[in-house]
Amino acid sequence: MARPRGGTGTNQGAVRRHNLGTLLRHVHDAGEMSRADLTYRMGLNRSTIAGLVSELESLGLLEHASPAAPRGAGRPSAGVRIRDDGPYVVAVDLGVDQVVVAAVGLGGRIGVRAATALTQPSEAWHVGASVAGLVRRVVATSPAAAPLLGIGVAVPGLVRRSDGLVRHAPNLGWRDVSFGSIVLAALDLDVPIAVGNDADLGAWAEHRLGAAVDVADVVYLSGNVGVGAGVILGGRRLEGVAGYAGEVGHLCHDPAGTTCHCGSRGCWETVVGAPAIAEALCCPAEQVPRLGVMLDELSTAPRELRPIGVELGRGLASVVNVFNPSIVVLGGYFRPLFRLLGPEVTAGLAERSLRPARDAVRLAAPGLGTDSVLLGAAEAAMGPVFDDPVASLATAVTGAPDHLAG
Amino acid sequence: MARPRGGTGTNQGAVRRHNLGTLLRHVHDAGEMSRADLTYRMGLNRSTIAGLVSELESLGLLEHASPAAPRGAGRPSAGVRIRDDGPYVVAVDLGVDQVVVAAVGLGGRIGVRAATALTQPSEAWHVGASVAGLVRRVVATSPAAAPLLGIGVAVPGLVRRSDGLVRHAPNLGWRDVSFGSIVLAALDLDVPIAVGNDADLGAWAEHRLGAAVDVADVVYLSGNVGVGAGVILGGRRLEGVAGYAGEVGHLCHDPAGTTCHCGSRGCWETVVGAPAIAEALCCPAEQVPRLGVMLDELSTAPRELRPIGVELGRGLASVVNVFNPSIVVLGGYFRPLFRLLGPEVTAGLAERSLRPARDAVRLAAPGLGTDSVLLGAAEAAMGPVFDDPVASLATAVTGAPDHLAG
Repeated sequence: MARPRGGTGTNQGAVRRHNLGTLLRHVHDAGEMSRADLTYRMGLNRSTIAGLVSELESLGLLEHASPAAPRGAGRPSAGVRIRDDGPYVVAVDLGVDQVVVAAVGLGGRIGVRAATALTQPSEAWHVGASVAGLVRRVVATSPAAAPLLGIGVAVPGLVRRSDGLVRHAPNLGWRDVSFGSIVLAALDLDVPIAVGNDADLGAWAEHRLGAAVDVADVVYLSGNVGVGAGVILGGRRLEGVAGYAGEVGHLCHDPAGTTCHCGSRGCWETVVGAPAIAEALCCPAEQVPRLGVMLDELSTAPRELRPIGVELGRGLASVVNVFNPSIVVLGGYFRPLFRLLGPEVTAGLAERSLRPARDAVRLAAPGLGTDSVLLGAAEAAMGPVFDDPVASLATAVTGAPDHLAG
Repeated sequence: MARPRGGTGTNQGAVRRHNLGTLLRHVHDAGEMSRADLTYRMGLNRSTIAGLVSELESLGLLEHASPAAPRGAGRPSAGVRIRDDGPYVVAVDLGVDQVVVAAVGLGGRIGVRAATALTQPSEAWHVGASVAGLVRRVVATSPAAAPLLGIGVAVPGLVRRSDGLVRHAPNLGWRDVSFGSIVLAALDLDVPIAVGNDADLGAWAEHRLGAAVDVADVVYLSGNVGVGAGVILGGRRLEGVAGYAGEVGHLCHDPAGTTCHCGSRGCWETVVGAPAIAEALCCPAEQVPRLGVMLDELSTAPRELRPIGVELGRGLASVVNVFNPSIVVLGGYFRPLFRLLGPEVTAGLAERSLRPARDAVRLAAPGLGTDSVLLGAAEAAMGPVFDDPVASLATAVTGAPDHLAG
């Protein structure tokens, strides 16, 4: 009987590309893996795995790794790992006061890095030009032969899931900004670009690579001038209908409080945001961008910071009551704040949270240090290569174009 | 070649039972369906559907329905519907001040109903005895030949997903109560019992049968003395690690506010809970159970209620900011409150919510009237029959036992 070749062939091709991407993601997550592990995890037979590995090697994505010392009887199976000189993405962590840009290879290896301070008010075209300048610098100093797969951008604001439009970034003063298009126009480059909310991306990176690996119910709290949360429940990102879920910085915290950038009053962010912390420390406004570094340098908390620790815990109680996570990762400047004010934070949480939800949660520092959001932006840019490595490499830019290298 | 009969046979049996349950759920959701629709929706061929329908008919679950008038050319396909005298569940909607119990048939048809007021404080064993008494009455007046599949109980508190333990019901004063076991012991009956949070069950019923059918991102706000939310995002129930997610009544609303039953201060529930509404209406404490009915009887809102409408909207702003739903269904006494105070609620929401999230949401009355939670409890009890009708009927109780009928 004649088989419908075209149809089956196309379908087989799609399945094979999907398997290539899945195998690549396994090695990306683990850093290095034996063929035996890949065979077990993917439920495919040895010869299929060998064929997929061989194709990913010829695409320049994987390379042979010496087997680890044998733990049991028999010869250990040969391993594969991500190639150091393989394709990379450019990740952009856009803060309110500064922007960090880095080349990130598959496997999460951070290469060249560049950063600059931003001045307020930050017009989107101006910020776009700054970002483009940093991207150029990073690309120009990355290996010329390595393909650039795409760009991922983390933004402190509400990002529409369908098209990456920045609907509202209160602390930047932006509404309805196509920031991805602005950056690409400033770069004069045609490469895939993904834009996402900073806290959502930080949560995803901590879940894939950091403190919340193998944890299904995760809140990542982002302290980046403003306050937001990325939430993963049951292993799935919490997005809401348009992608705006998790805006915990704008939970009502004190109706008698001060006015918030969002236009409302007494949001949690007005009490635990960077300006409130800077004021407690009598820190001049121009030092706010260095707030995280300043807090990192403290070995004990000044008395003036203690009430902020309590308010951080009280607001976390609302977060714990509504999401019932098993871990809350405290990112951005909340990382040093939690190190300095652990007892105050825990007391505020205990005061206002429901006991069963509180008993189920632990507070933790990010496993990725200060790079959760940056690596989350990289993960977003890498999405297509894990769906279909062949198609993703076809749209990659290889060799720094003249106008980028200059 | 000999086939491994046992293994394949078992597997085929499991697939067939799964298909029986899925077909039954389709008819349950739709009320009545043509065989053509079932063939299309389930992706199975006509003769397989005919075989499944025939088996469900012989199990006493479905019956033949006259075809609807033809809309196109050709003979309309014959239909099936849920049998009126088929199996049923008993649903229990446990409020703080009253309990409603009803027989609910497949298809969501509510049969015999019974209710009683509860007095405070409500010891769990005492409430269990009251519930058992109502269940007996409902079973005794239901058709004796109809099998009782199980009991579903909605509780206003935190219910552990793994085993249905009521960890904390602040308004009942309960901690770590095995309420399902208490009810079964009082009934002296061995029948499956499912216990869930009232708001979660209300959300699920509105999503399956009410105002949020075909809507993926839903918040159901329950006003039942206390305040809670059931949340469905991306079509999946939001549960958290242990099932406690959605406790929006205990969001911090005003740190200078009054003490809450949960032990904290100024929770949203202290401002929009039944006691606050009763106080605004100068309603005596013993009338609080009738609050929903009293509000239903009003045609315009007394001036004293208006600030509560605004606070309802302000708290909804927090809900909308963290979940980004496309619909919020206002259940319990919030249903008449929203009818009376729509402009105040909308103004409070507008004042505190982020614009993109607010633009994406609409507020709505429940499609199931005052029965959302009751029908959600029924849905929970029906779960097993949609997984495997044959196994579920095997554990059903047929004919009211003597000690129940008495």
